[in-house]
Amino acid sequence: MTADQLFQQITLKRSFLCIGLDADIKRIPSEFRQAEYPLFEFNKNIIDITHNYAVAYKPNTAFYECHGDKGWKQLELTVEYVKKNHPEVFVIADAKRGDIGNTAAKYAEAFFERMSCDAVTLSPYMGSDSVTPFLDHKEKWAILLALTSNPGARDFQLGRHEGSTALFTSVLEKSAKWGTTDNIMYVIGATRAEMLVKVREIVPRHFLLIPGVGAQGGDLGEVAGYGLNDRCGLLVNVSRSVIFPEGENHRDAVLEITLSIQQEMKKILEDRNM
Amino acid sequence: MTADQLFQQITLKRSFLCIGLDADIKRIPSEFRQAEYPLFEFNKNIIDITHNYAVAYKPNTAFYECHGDKGWKQLELTVEYVKKNHPEVFVIADAKRGDIGNTAAKYAEAFFERMSCDAVTLSPYMGSDSVTPFLDHKEKWAILLALTSNPGARDFQLGRHEGSTALFTSVLEKSAKWGTTDNIMYVIGATRAEMLVKVREIVPRHFLLIPGVGAQGGDLGEVAGYGLNDRCGLLVNVSRSVIFPEGENHRDAVLEITLSIQQEMKKILEDRNM
Repeated sequence: MTADQLFQQITLKRSFLCIGLDADIKRIPSEFRQAEYPLFEFNKNIIDITHNYAVAYKPNTAFYECHGDKGWKQLELTVEYVKKNHPEVFVIADAKRGDIGNTAAKYAEAFFERMSCDAVTLSPYMGSDSVTPFLDHKEKWAILLALTSNPGARDFQLGRHEGSTALFTSVLEKSAKWGTTDNIMYVIGATRAEMLVKVREIVPRHFLLIPGVGAQGGDLGEVAGYGLNDRCGLLVNVSRSVIFPEGENHRDAVLEITLSIQQEMKKILEDRNM
Repeated sequence: MTADQLFQQITLKRSFLCIGLDADIKRIPSEFRQAEYPLFEFNKNIIDITHNYAVAYKPNTAFYECHGDKGWKQLELTVEYVKKNHPEVFVIADAKRGDIGNTAAKYAEAFFERMSCDAVTLSPYMGSDSVTPFLDHKEKWAILLALTSNPGARDFQLGRHEGSTALFTSVLEKSAKWGTTDNIMYVIGATRAEMLVKVREIVPRHFLLIPGVGAQGGDLGEVAGYGLNDRCGLLVNVSRSVIFPEGENHRDAVLEITLSIQQEMKKILEDRNM
């Protein structure tokens, strides 16, 4: 998928919502737990309820790997289900991989060929040759960690690095040259929304994947205020607040929270004439 | 496994060899390709030939994930085979994960509980809370990327960082405080052996996992000269050169290269009275 095609989906759905499919077996409603593939049945239900209001889904590989090969199977079934029924939806494997070239090529094969994900999240620590094998795949994306939403982001990402004000700005500056605005995005945590000003100075045109809205405390209005560009340029991810909402009826509660986020996004887009 | 137990194995086998199980389907001998689980049968064969001369095996998750759930199954079968038949051997999941706390806990569950790996390789980019969930597992290890063996290591790892001479030294300095010499190791690429002097100033007691010997060009004598400590403190990984050696008879060629490395290690240990 190209950046323009993604923007087109955003304008059609009036939403820049990405739903994180962190299908924690301990938290999924009991009705799904008896199924042969409980994580998949749970995800399918979430997708059926939300696909008109979300432009992307982001399964997090850890929640599948902890169930072994049967977990991995359910990750594959989930991606297949989205792509078969809603090919216009962007699918991100939240895998945070990062390894030497020959290994990176194998990860790209796993997520882009074996599965039909549109994007994979990657750690930039090992540098260019750990990222470029992903960029060799046409209309696929590498989403690089720049500034994450967790407390540990302070340990290294915010420290000054070479000539740059911080390691995360150094990552943006260097890696933007490895690809284009059609195959690289960045993870910028919503819990540090004011940092988006600095981010937009360096990568004004790139799409940003913003985690941390909801359970982790980030604010959507603030993120949009600092981060939007003229083709939106944001995918805001919400995981736990959407898939495990408060409320007795899970289906109703998922729909209600998803719609309320989508309505807020619709207003934000309208205010910017998008 | 504790560091002392690992050192005991090193002295018993007179080897600090780790064999990387990068089971590339395109390179494994044809005799294994017809099996239901070709990667597992190939690994089993490598393990049967080499287990007296290696103290660790390191399957690289990418080579299994690119075969989907059936690939993941073969990763699990491989770890199970080692631990059932040779429980004294150290097993490293070369996964290079790194995510926020609740996700890190799931990865730890995947590799330490669902499988019985002794260690997982991790990227330090996301900081302390992406690592500490792994340290909560008794006698299990987090192996943090510090200085890697690939060309891209230059992009960020070698750049000055805050008060430290480089990002990789900053990683060593900070993360050493998150755990102990019994649950943290570091990846230091053999292609930068002279850097081991600097590494040993910061972490004199930690075990180091050294990739890059063999196919990537690192030199064993040089690595040992700069990196050994009084309980060895090194696991030197060789992947492609051992599992895909030149030679007509695969079994003989694997044994020959493994033995030649082990003999070189034996001499190195003897020279240092270990």
